[in-house]
Amino acid sequence: MLWASGGSTGGKAVTLPQVPGFQFSAVKSGIKESGALDLGLIYAQDGAVSAGVYTRNEVRAAPVVVCEERSRTGLASAVLVNSGNANACTGRAGHRVTVSTTAALAGLLGSASHAVLPASTGVIGVPLPGDKIVASLPSLVQGLSSDRASDFAQAILTTDQGPKVSHTRVRLGSGRTATVMAIAKGAGMIHPNMATTLGFVMTDAVVSRAHLHRLLNRSADRTFNRISVDGDTSTNDTLLALASGALGGPPVPVRGALSDRFERALTGVLEDVAKMIVADGEGAQHLVKIEVVGAESKKAATAVARTIATSQLVKTAIHGCDPNWGRILGAAGRAGVAVDSSIMTVHLGGVCVYRRGRPLSVETEASAAMKQAEYTVRVRLGSGEAASHYWTCDLGHEYVRINAEYRT
Amino acid sequence: MLWASGGSTGGKAVTLPQVPGFQFSAVKSGIKESGALDLGLIYAQDGAVSAGVYTRNEVRAAPVVVCEERSRTGLASAVLVNSGNANACTGRAGHRVTVSTTAALAGLLGSASHAVLPASTGVIGVPLPGDKIVASLPSLVQGLSSDRASDFAQAILTTDQGPKVSHTRVRLGSGRTATVMAIAKGAGMIHPNMATTLGFVMTDAVVSRAHLHRLLNRSADRTFNRISVDGDTSTNDTLLALASGALGGPPVPVRGALSDRFERALTGVLEDVAKMIVADGEGAQHLVKIEVVGAESKKAATAVARTIATSQLVKTAIHGCDPNWGRILGAAGRAGVAVDSSIMTVHLGGVCVYRRGRPLSVETEASAAMKQAEYTVRVRLGSGEAASHYWTCDLGHEYVRINAEYRT
Repeated sequence: MLWASGGSTGGKAVTLPQVPGFQFSAVKSGIKESGALDLGLIYAQDGAVSAGVYTRNEVRAAPVVVCEERSRTGLASAVLVNSGNANACTGRAGHRVTVSTTAALAGLLGSASHAVLPASTGVIGVPLPGDKIVASLPSLVQGLSSDRASDFAQAILTTDQGPKVSHTRVRLGSGRTATVMAIAKGAGMIHPNMATTLGFVMTDAVVSRAHLHRLLNRSADRTFNRISVDGDTSTNDTLLALASGALGGPPVPVRGALSDRFERALTGVLEDVAKMIVADGEGAQHLVKIEVVGAESKKAATAVARTIATSQLVKTAIHGCDPNWGRILGAAGRAGVAVDSSIMTVHLGGVCVYRRGRPLSVETEASAAMKQAEYTVRVRLGSGEAASHYWTCDLGHEYVRINAEYRT
Repeated sequence: MLWASGGSTGGKAVTLPQVPGFQFSAVKSGIKESGALDLGLIYAQDGAVSAGVYTRNEVRAAPVVVCEERSRTGLASAVLVNSGNANACTGRAGHRVTVSTTAALAGLLGSASHAVLPASTGVIGVPLPGDKIVASLPSLVQGLSSDRASDFAQAILTTDQGPKVSHTRVRLGSGRTATVMAIAKGAGMIHPNMATTLGFVMTDAVVSRAHLHRLLNRSADRTFNRISVDGDTSTNDTLLALASGALGGPPVPVRGALSDRFERALTGVLEDVAKMIVADGEGAQHLVKIEVVGAESKKAATAVARTIATSQLVKTAIHGCDPNWGRILGAAGRAGVAVDSSIMTVHLGGVCVYRRGRPLSVETEASAAMKQAEYTVRVRLGSGEAASHYWTCDLGHEYVRINAEYRT
């Protein structure tokens, strides 16, 4: 298993800092047959400004529909997350359970129903046991503590091999330093029946609704929207940002050095957990950044990066440490943008294997570079100014085993 | 291994009928290190009307560029095909070899260079040994016989487990019966370094250039453009139709019953060999037709069918005989068209698993139906009139083994 380096933390046991203005809790409600933690709560006791990004899949689970609708107000007091059941393809009854469980929690917290944001992840098409959730809410609320973010991180997992968290601190001037923490789950959408990408980023900075919305969209576009394990997207994908404002002081300005610094911090923690999701693709042994440069437009660069990152043939070559640049050119050629292989250049883990239309005899060096746990595939399309990237992992036997043998 | 039934033939040994107006040949030129047949020739001694369909990949091999350019005239006398080397990503030198080898053949046949259509398949980025080809041309021409179509079918193979051929006869009125024969290769684009889809369809019917072009495009759109093994397309894919006119009589009319009958014959043999290509995906144990009905438009139906057919998660579920309708809905939801899971219906091999938004408890029956070597996944989107389909196969361990361990 690969974990991103830097300020991030991976593995079973995590110790997380407090984020002023937030409390966390987690209980075992019995949704998961294993008896593991399966219900998590984030509580902003004095409310928080919120922003969300959601799955683009046309088939959307009830909690996604409700969460998106409620978070349009830009204010939230709590996020209720269950794992083990996605509450997807469950019809009107599924919608009712989402509404009734969040209403019950709102009652206990003394907040408005529309300020409680729901998220679910797990099996599709099975009724969500609302009674188990409602029965667990009192102990969930009772367990709230500013020190229990790591329990929350555990409670939202499904097929993940471990929690995915990252945090950093960012100076916002006048001696004030904000905390930014991201907690995520997802083993790369590998199990659509058991998986989903969920991400929650909490900060005590003061941020306006509009600016938080803008920052989250930009950051998501560079991180959560740039990862691929198998090209499938879930019915439940949700990414929420919450700013408690507990730090005080003036809001993060809309532009300038302070805003840039805050945006870098936000993007940084999201990139950390996004990479952890790719690396957690079951059986994944390589975390690979597909970097496309020299494109005529950002859109073209992204299309080429995405097509390479989702190519089964490229992903099996990565698995086999096979410097098969022909597969990379082939994928680039079907991305729907004009490319010319006679001027392209390809580097694998720093080794140039194909320069301006000519293959180089570096098979041994390139294969060795591909044995690294994390490396970059760099594709220069031409002399354009635009660049983009995607994160991907290898496609190996474990993927097939897990996905073919699941349920059978 | 699966082979399509009906008038088609699969396996190692094939006996093929003659198609009046055509001769075939094949030799071992030494391009393949194994010493197998690797150079094939189709010769229309009195010329033929021709039409072609080519890869949409932006990265195109030299023979594709030359073949498309030459076949624009709509007349051809010969097709020269080598296997073992794709002559792709080989720059100007690759173009020169294609031109010089076809010129040498034209000299021996006494025809014009531009009437010789080239096709190559095999490894990418390695110079094509033109000298070996030129040295083999005299024996290739000498070996021409109207009975050697099966040798030609063998010579164009790469990773295929066997030749892919299908033939039929179609009555064109006044006691005249035309032969239509398709010969193809390709193990579903599974090896881009060693694979490509090549297809050649020969008939002795009299067909005008414009009508043959139209018929081939329509037939390809229903067959060769409706198959997917892994979503990758090759640098070399080529499908050619040749009509010798040796049958005599009036040309196939542009519309009406005779034209329809001829088109059905053409589409039939192309569908046979297209299905054989999908079934030959290494390790493939299931040949599955993804049928999408009730769509608002043909384009929407095709987009949904294609997204389901290329979903890794659906393909691994097919491999595991897992009636995982959630994966099918999830794929349909990300096809880029409006779908509503609450009105959708899904059948797996004839068993309804999801009816108008409700899962049915038929796991055992559905899993049994999915054990069939060939079956249909039928997805009803709504009450629209449009339908489309795709052919796909399962994704199993063999796929990963072959593609990850190739070259290493």
